[in-house]
Amino acid sequence: MADPRFDVVGIGNAIVDVIARSDQAFLDAEGLAKNAMILVDEARSAELYSRMGPGVEISGGSAGNTIAAMASLGSTVAYVGKVRDDQLGAVYRHDMTAQGARFVTPAATSGAPTARCMVLVTPDGHRTMCTYLGACVDLGPEDLDLEALRATKAVYMEGYLFDPPRAKAAFREAASVVHAAGGKVALTLSDSFCVNRYLDEFRDLVEHHVDILFANESEALALTGTADYQAAVAALVGKTELAAITRSEHGSVVLAGNEVVAVPAYPVAKVVDTTGAGDLYAAGFLHAWARGLSPADMARAGALAAAEIISHIGARPETPLADLFRQHLPHAV
Amino acid sequence: MADPRFDVVGIGNAIVDVIARSDQAFLDAEGLAKNAMILVDEARSAELYSRMGPGVEISGGSAGNTIAAMASLGSTVAYVGKVRDDQLGAVYRHDMTAQGARFVTPAATSGAPTARCMVLVTPDGHRTMCTYLGACVDLGPEDLDLEALRATKAVYMEGYLFDPPRAKAAFREAASVVHAAGGKVALTLSDSFCVNRYLDEFRDLVEHHVDILFANESEALALTGTADYQAAVAALVGKTELAAITRSEHGSVVLAGNEVVAVPAYPVAKVVDTTGAGDLYAAGFLHAWARGLSPADMARAGALAAAEIISHIGARPETPLADLFRQHLPHAV
Repeated sequence: MADPRFDVVGIGNAIVDVIARSDQAFLDAEGLAKNAMILVDEARSAELYSRMGPGVEISGGSAGNTIAAMASLGSTVAYVGKVRDDQLGAVYRHDMTAQGARFVTPAATSGAPTARCMVLVTPDGHRTMCTYLGACVDLGPEDLDLEALRATKAVYMEGYLFDPPRAKAAFREAASVVHAAGGKVALTLSDSFCVNRYLDEFRDLVEHHVDILFANESEALALTGTADYQAAVAALVGKTELAAITRSEHGSVVLAGNEVVAVPAYPVAKVVDTTGAGDLYAAGFLHAWARGLSPADMARAGALAAAEIISHIGARPETPLADLFRQHLPHAV
Repeated sequence: MADPRFDVVGIGNAIVDVIARSDQAFLDAEGLAKNAMILVDEARSAELYSRMGPGVEISGGSAGNTIAAMASLGSTVAYVGKVRDDQLGAVYRHDMTAQGARFVTPAATSGAPTARCMVLVTPDGHRTMCTYLGACVDLGPEDLDLEALRATKAVYMEGYLFDPPRAKAAFREAASVVHAAGGKVALTLSDSFCVNRYLDEFRDLVEHHVDILFANESEALALTGTADYQAAVAALVGKTELAAITRSEHGSVVLAGNEVVAVPAYPVAKVVDTTGAGDLYAAGFLHAWARGLSPADMARAGALAAAEIISHIGARPETPLADLFRQHLPHAV
């Protein structure tokens, strides 16, 4: 591609977050593993909702958060995800397009409602997510935005796409279209439970189809079948063109070919809600990557974007990220 | 009443807030008067929504905010308001009941969708509101929760109820039911534009039907037709059993019979979003009133609750208010 029109096209489960403060006793009573993403059906979703506290609704979805944040940084981005033609679907579409992202996937006109994720935030700022996939189960290869995929530097896809039945076909098709057009394929492993659900498929993807990999520590351990972080890094070196392993307050490590670059976390006054930390890291990272910056700068940009998102409730930026970057990391805007 | 079961029953327009950061240029371009509540029809609502930034959805409504906050303080409360049987209506009902308030008004099964208010927050923390009343236009006397109204220390109603066509009949009926049962009638004037829309009716209400009045400075000036704050206070002394005039960072003044008590505002580190400041003041005030505290304590409790709400986005408390009060105003919990 001479001059790709898009920096990144994201594909993911289009989900509205319903965020509520919670506590360990509630997680225990409901049998929810803290920090995990748990899939729930419609009945269980309604039951949990009836028992949880008052909420705040904010558009979410892992890749959706990344794309919205990249738009807030000034990247040219598009999003592919499936909502229903209902109120929450309209909210999701508004939030994505109002942020400046192209989002032309048609809404489903029948079937399940727009997906929702009940995000339970404990006093330590950690989040436990219960996702009802709703209309996301309808996403298929026919929904791909081929025009954008053929004109992008990279496609960014979430591992969660393997949960709905037809999205993995869309995933593979998108990777193939982007590679054929000369773009790169980026994957976030999403969640260690998710990695374990699709371990063989994810290993095959990373081995043969992924150019840029995002994982947190537990996801990296799950993927590589290693028992500690150093072993996971060793197992991943050279597997992909680029890999970023995020380690919460311990910062992140970028594997660029055989180079291993460690970058510290960006300090935050108070961790309010970790929802979206990994998504925003990927946003900063890919924004810097699309601008040709160094691996260390990609990691710094990721850390700065993540620091903004964990300082408040929700996984969409409260501050225009471009302003934040102009102040703290001006060469990465 | 020997022992009223409810501290307060609130009646208001049941509205989901869609909160977005904005700036003066946007308000100017859209012809919106800063700090006002502007009524919009469905078409204008859709047009504004398509042009505003990404939002956060949080249940709102003036009296709804007050009742939710009182529940968070530990008061026994009920709410009357009209939503549609749609997704945002379900969100509204969940948020009210999950907070601990009784809310049994049936949802409309046809007609306009659940009301929404686009809340545009400028960098100074001030909010400008564009309200599409939606299903609120269906609220009528048949929706009153008579069981609760006959067993409450007070009914709290918002001046905004005069905007939808049939709610003012519900307002008058509720006042009559509560007075007959020995309870008190509280009114918030809501907004100076609203006061001017219904000036004669509001003056008649205050003169003959209201026991506890809430107004901010500009609403008090509008109601009394005075040009300055001192004159407004003088005009209101003795008009109602109790009146509270809120003055933003200058604190508030309580008129209790012929007594005039001034109480300072509670200091806040940063004003993020003033949405709901008056609603939360009323919540703290009425919570203290229902516990038989002094006028100065009512004002202190109002100031503390208001300080919590202006420190973050949205008009529903992020912190359990009972915890906050135990820390800063323990005798008012």
